[in-house]
Amino acid sequence: MSVSLQDVQTALERIKRYVHRTPLERHQSLNDLSGAELWFKSENKQKCGAFKARGAHHALTQLTPEQLARGVATHSSGNHGAALALAARRFGAQAFVVMPSNAPVPKRQATLAYGATVIDCEPTLEAREAALKACVERTGAVFVPPYDHPDIIAGQGTLALEMLEQNPNLDAILVPVGGGGMLAGVSLAVKALRPDIKVIGVEPLGADDAKRSFLTGQHVRQHQPDTIADGLRTTLGTLNFALIRDHTDDIVTVTDAQITAAMKVFMVRAKALVEPSGIVGLAAVMADPSRFAKQQVGIVISGGNVDLEHPVWL
Amino acid sequence: MSVSLQDVQTALERIKRYVHRTPLERHQSLNDLSGAELWFKSENKQKCGAFKARGAHHALTQLTPEQLARGVATHSSGNHGAALALAARRFGAQAFVVMPSNAPVPKRQATLAYGATVIDCEPTLEAREAALKACVERTGAVFVPPYDHPDIIAGQGTLALEMLEQNPNLDAILVPVGGGGMLAGVSLAVKALRPDIKVIGVEPLGADDAKRSFLTGQHVRQHQPDTIADGLRTTLGTLNFALIRDHTDDIVTVTDAQITAAMKVFMVRAKALVEPSGIVGLAAVMADPSRFAKQQVGIVISGGNVDLEHPVWL
Repeated sequence: MSVSLQDVQTALERIKRYVHRTPLERHQSLNDLSGAELWFKSENKQKCGAFKARGAHHALTQLTPEQLARGVATHSSGNHGAALALAARRFGAQAFVVMPSNAPVPKRQATLAYGATVIDCEPTLEAREAALKACVERTGAVFVPPYDHPDIIAGQGTLALEMLEQNPNLDAILVPVGGGGMLAGVSLAVKALRPDIKVIGVEPLGADDAKRSFLTGQHVRQHQPDTIADGLRTTLGTLNFALIRDHTDDIVTVTDAQITAAMKVFMVRAKALVEPSGIVGLAAVMADPSRFAKQQVGIVISGGNVDLEHPVWL
Repeated sequence: MSVSLQDVQTALERIKRYVHRTPLERHQSLNDLSGAELWFKSENKQKCGAFKARGAHHALTQLTPEQLARGVATHSSGNHGAALALAARRFGAQAFVVMPSNAPVPKRQATLAYGATVIDCEPTLEAREAALKACVERTGAVFVPPYDHPDIIAGQGTLALEMLEQNPNLDAILVPVGGGGMLAGVSLAVKALRPDIKVIGVEPLGADDAKRSFLTGQHVRQHQPDTIADGLRTTLGTLNFALIRDHTDDIVTVTDAQITAAMKVFMVRAKALVEPSGIVGLAAVMADPSRFAKQQVGIVISGGNVDLEHPVWL
């Protein structure tokens, strides 16, 4: 079971009536600051405020009417849950979302606002999986995985197809990595079309299972992640690991302090909201400017669902 | 001494190489929330993050090389100072900016970053004017007023010409009013071109000199303003008062609580930063939805220079 460029291209055809083609934006003052030419793929302006809308909608296009009638279920620290809730509403299905107790309040609220049933659990992968299993057994809903599934990977990879069209002259693309669905999809699509473009995953230092897996070739699981980037605390998926190992050029890490600094400078200069997980690409450029100097660097701003009531930058 | 539509049209020709034609943006979830069709003129994405870039650049296009060589000076609670600093740098002039001690830190920092000399003063109109007078006498710099001047009014009014092009079907336009330069320029331009469109000023309740002046026909000065909308604490200009009296349809007020609520909902839904002064238009719609129900309402988002270190919404 793998994912091909054709799968990503087909996914884009399937989802483009449901999700936004987000802009690839530039901000001169951030170019001046970084010494690179930065192109921000603004998935913070995607439906439900995050790239997760792509995979969730794509997964639901693949379900039968019978499956949709049973409902859909997932576990999510936030954006996938909200995206699945939104997509389920669009497809007329009931959504059940298992959320850890430390999920940001706005993401929980969005998931509820889109009409999903939220099921609370402890903030561990084991608790999430157990609660999900119980939910599926009780309701008969179809499990739509948050990241480790071909339909999700193909859906998330669609943003790379748009980026290559929006600027064919990119030298590198920086992609946040948590569960790895986006990095897997972007890597395989970019490398199939444009092997000359470097695809680099960016991960918080406090949840660096993808980097350790990538470097050692052994799939490491993430236990007790410690980072403000709530969307990147999840462990790397198995299918994603294989795709990332084969198609990604590098994975780098950034500290929470670097994430916070990048978040503030981006919000002030770009006048746009970004969540901690969404800004790790800019943090990576600011942490190692000589690596990207004068290059055209695509940065995926993966989401903008920041908790304004609890500003992590203070 | 007055200002005509022709002046505004000429101003747009003069400044369009220096400032952005900002987008007129829609956000479906805010339409759903308000029951109106809202069109946001995103001056938070203007150069230096505020509409003030228009007037400042326009004023400087009208100075002689000899005047520019003497430098320019102003007093400002923030955005006009930063805008003048930016424009002065573009025109090769030194800028001196008198700022009250309660000006938001990011605005002071931006003014300094653009190369201006900042002169601190007490947060009263009298102190500002006295410090400015001393500065001009000492340096010989040319005073560029923050709002009560034909070149400034014509410059700010240019955003209305863009709005009418970007959506010719607006029923009303909501404009923040502090010193009144923007409301004066927008009102006279809109009423000359499209008298059917309602132009409504929006002011914080704690600095409602424009509303009181408008209602009574007597120019009231604002003493001891009390509002989080730092850009709207200034007193209505004399020339602006005359233009607003003649061309504006109405002025409404909003409370700080309404401003804060509107700011949060806009940031969460639009994923864009807005400063308190910039969101009063949306606050007015949310405060009186029946007045705007089903209408196409233009809302000027006048600036996005919010102080992230001191979130006023908490």
